[in-house]
Amino acid sequence: MMRLQEAYEELVRRMREQTLLSSCAELLGWDELTYLPPGGVGHRAEQQALLAGLYHEKATDPRLGDLLATLEGSDLVADPDSPAAVNVREMRYAYDRLTRLPRDLVEEEARLTSVAQQAWSVARANDDFARFRPWLEQVIALARRRAECLGYEAIPYDALLEDYEPGLRTRDLVSLFDELRRELVPLAAEVGDARRRDRAAVLRREYPLDRQRIFGEAVASELGFDFHRGRLDTSVHPFSTLIGPGDCRIATRYALHDFGDSFFSILHEVGHGLYDQGLPAEHYGTPMGEPVSLGLHEAQARLWENTVGRSRAFWRHFFPRARQVFHESLHDVDAEDFYRAVNHVAPGPNRVRADEVTYNLHILVRFELEVAMIAGDLRAADVPTAWNEAYQRDLGITPPSDAEGCLQDGHWGDGLIGYFPTYTLGNIFAEQLFAAASREVGGLEEQFVRGDFGGLLGWLREKVHRHGQRYRAPELLKRVTGAALDSRPLLDRLHRQHRELNEPT
Amino acid sequence: MMRLQEAYEELVRRMREQTLLSSCAELLGWDELTYLPPGGVGHRAEQQALLAGLYHEKATDPRLGDLLATLEGSDLVADPDSPAAVNVREMRYAYDRLTRLPRDLVEEEARLTSVAQQAWSVARANDDFARFRPWLEQVIALARRRAECLGYEAIPYDALLEDYEPGLRTRDLVSLFDELRRELVPLAAEVGDARRRDRAAVLRREYPLDRQRIFGEAVASELGFDFHRGRLDTSVHPFSTLIGPGDCRIATRYALHDFGDSFFSILHEVGHGLYDQGLPAEHYGTPMGEPVSLGLHEAQARLWENTVGRSRAFWRHFFPRARQVFHESLHDVDAEDFYRAVNHVAPGPNRVRADEVTYNLHILVRFELEVAMIAGDLRAADVPTAWNEAYQRDLGITPPSDAEGCLQDGHWGDGLIGYFPTYTLGNIFAEQLFAAASREVGGLEEQFVRGDFGGLLGWLREKVHRHGQRYRAPELLKRVTGAALDSRPLLDRLHRQHRELNEPT
Repeated sequence: MMRLQEAYEELVRRMREQTLLSSCAELLGWDELTYLPPGGVGHRAEQQALLAGLYHEKATDPRLGDLLATLEGSDLVADPDSPAAVNVREMRYAYDRLTRLPRDLVEEEARLTSVAQQAWSVARANDDFARFRPWLEQVIALARRRAECLGYEAIPYDALLEDYEPGLRTRDLVSLFDELRRELVPLAAEVGDARRRDRAAVLRREYPLDRQRIFGEAVASELGFDFHRGRLDTSVHPFSTLIGPGDCRIATRYALHDFGDSFFSILHEVGHGLYDQGLPAEHYGTPMGEPVSLGLHEAQARLWENTVGRSRAFWRHFFPRARQVFHESLHDVDAEDFYRAVNHVAPGPNRVRADEVTYNLHILVRFELEVAMIAGDLRAADVPTAWNEAYQRDLGITPPSDAEGCLQDGHWGDGLIGYFPTYTLGNIFAEQLFAAASREVGGLEEQFVRGDFGGLLGWLREKVHRHGQRYRAPELLKRVTGAALDSRPLLDRLHRQHRELNEPT
Repeated sequence: MMRLQEAYEELVRRMREQTLLSSCAELLGWDELTYLPPGGVGHRAEQQALLAGLYHEKATDPRLGDLLATLEGSDLVADPDSPAAVNVREMRYAYDRLTRLPRDLVEEEARLTSVAQQAWSVARANDDFARFRPWLEQVIALARRRAECLGYEAIPYDALLEDYEPGLRTRDLVSLFDELRRELVPLAAEVGDARRRDRAAVLRREYPLDRQRIFGEAVASELGFDFHRGRLDTSVHPFSTLIGPGDCRIATRYALHDFGDSFFSILHEVGHGLYDQGLPAEHYGTPMGEPVSLGLHEAQARLWENTVGRSRAFWRHFFPRARQVFHESLHDVDAEDFYRAVNHVAPGPNRVRADEVTYNLHILVRFELEVAMIAGDLRAADVPTAWNEAYQRDLGITPPSDAEGCLQDGHWGDGLIGYFPTYTLGNIFAEQLFAAASREVGGLEEQFVRGDFGGLLGWLREKVHRHGQRYRAPELLKRVTGAALDSRPLLDRLHRQHRELNEPT
């Protein structure tokens, strides 16, 4: 019999090698979105396919199964919160899931998503859903096959959700989301812009691109993003990626007449980056050094983007600087005007540009349609109609085109089914975390006004970041906030903040 | 017995996979020199070590030996110039060399160079050779061990040369370099700047960085560098790298008061890039799709940088544009002044900034010292003295410090012994190729004056680039120029050009 310590060391070495390999793929992916010349796209796909194949080989090596079997139930993992126990638990989880996927399915998924993504992009550019329809059908078919291979308790969509938010079930989301819909639809109708002048017009004045970047970097740095261990680049879509410890990269886009688009994207990606930079580097490459779940990662992003970045205290601190940097556009505006502008509620067809109140309604529509597609209750061909009906019902609008409607997001072309709900989960987690931080740290608003964000960041580091995957999301939430998943804090804050903003000035 | 066609297809598949893997490492290397945040350096070294290990595993897989043995001598490789024969020949060559290197040596080399490079950088910054000495000793010791593993005909240095310029022997270089020294030392003394006013002062006026980049990109594009399939970035040291077909990247640095440094670096790297962009993409991943040798690659760079880029015809075409772009600095200068400025000869301690006449003397010194170190005739501790003596003897100067003397180049810290001679080889090849192109294409100067560089590039594509490794360097040279390696064309052009420039104006 293998000696336990040796077996564990080999397991760690193998985990680290897997992570190293996927970190090479991360860099290739980052480059693809930032600097890759157009002529290099085809080669990049081949590089990624090779690395994905090598990764799959390593991650499903039967030797891993042997090592895990040796370690499970042993003294080494007796304390369930110890790094060894956590790593063995999470490696087992990943190994079992991966080995349930036959190689031909993995390869077909890789092939399909690279062409489906392309087809989606063409379809959107031409506002022609019909071009994407056959690919969406295949994406759905493969997702269903994936669900069957992975297994599930109640319905196939559960298996897909599990990829992004382990432990979460469709039925939980349905009730959570119904609750949100019940309150957000009337709130949006109440505070939406039909009732008053366009407060956000100031955000559409002229903001020179280079100064947007400089301002964004300064804010990012002040919030705690470490540029010695990270970068900010320009890309078509905002994103963040962790290449390795000490190398966390975020990217955004800039538009001359849209301050909010790049600024809040930077805050959002900085939130992701702060989580990645706060993970315990000594556990890098093992689950103990990795983020808990997509929803919890998204929560970090939403917390800095919205709860912090759209607060009055935040702008009391940063607005004077913004007015210096963008003097031509902001000389006749004050901090309160700006605070109102960045919180302007206006139901529209676009998810990414949506305000906080309507944002979750966009997610609810996608979730509803995904569940129906996977259940076989909605055909790809009927998606545009179903989409527009749901938008009319929940947001009171009909998208002017499919390009601005059901073709707006790239997720389905990317093969990502079950991913959308994590955005709203992130909003809910974020507000629960922020409420707990407010109670425990105290005086956060005053600190923000002074430009001190270290109290909040320190609390997040201590309570969330440094634990890696020590606890699954529900348990972490319980330990940190004392509560289960609960939309109340989010709904309460949105009601409070937007009703106050809506009072006649 | 394996069927031949199947065996060949498997061989090609394996070659391509190796190249794909090393192309991932190329991208990581590019990023390291351009965008990597400082905190990511350690992780990057681990990523590179992993990829190098995976590469070595694939490249020394005994299955390759079996496939090669099956194919060698078969009908499939009967025509020695056919892609199959070339690929089998070069794969055999690479396989035999790699399998002669024990894994512990390869790993020790990787480990040593990453720390020796660091030590070199600190030693240079502190002008403290003693800090680098122990690492240089280890580099030499490993290089000697490498030579013993690889085997050689006459002396160990031959084995190291073979890594960079297959087929070339030390004794050939000694006589070639003696010939150069015999003529270049007196030429440098004759036309060197001690005798006349500093014509190059104009290059040290103010050249705004951004305009240098724009001008450099415009020239690169006009010479034929395809930005759809490539990029130009900023780095500490100029370099070029081929990530894959359709993705060739060059980089340079910019200094406000040094036009020549970035501009000729761009031309140099563009020359490398044009070769890479001209390789047959359909053979990518196999020797048929790869450059012949380092010397021949360098020749492409030198040809565009010097033979073309320092010609009167080139500046008759580009100077008017330069004067527009840099009006403040060039309004009182004409094309002829500028042509003279970029050809100013001034012996100095620095290789990278050296003029064309003295450049090769810098290489000769390094070659002489390397050969002596590998032969055991020169100890690392004695390098500074030997270096300074050789500089006094050949260039008539003594470097003011080791930092500006024997510590100026990073090659030895990188473990590269046997690499330097390829720079001078490149100059010689370049001039032989250009002389042949002049004869065959005809009217090149007039074409350059018109801004037409397609004739020369087309000839290089046809005669050199598209062949990949079909021929080894000596044979290619013979087929293309009708001659063996010959320094006469280079020496003749330098004499002619610099004597004419030296005539009183």
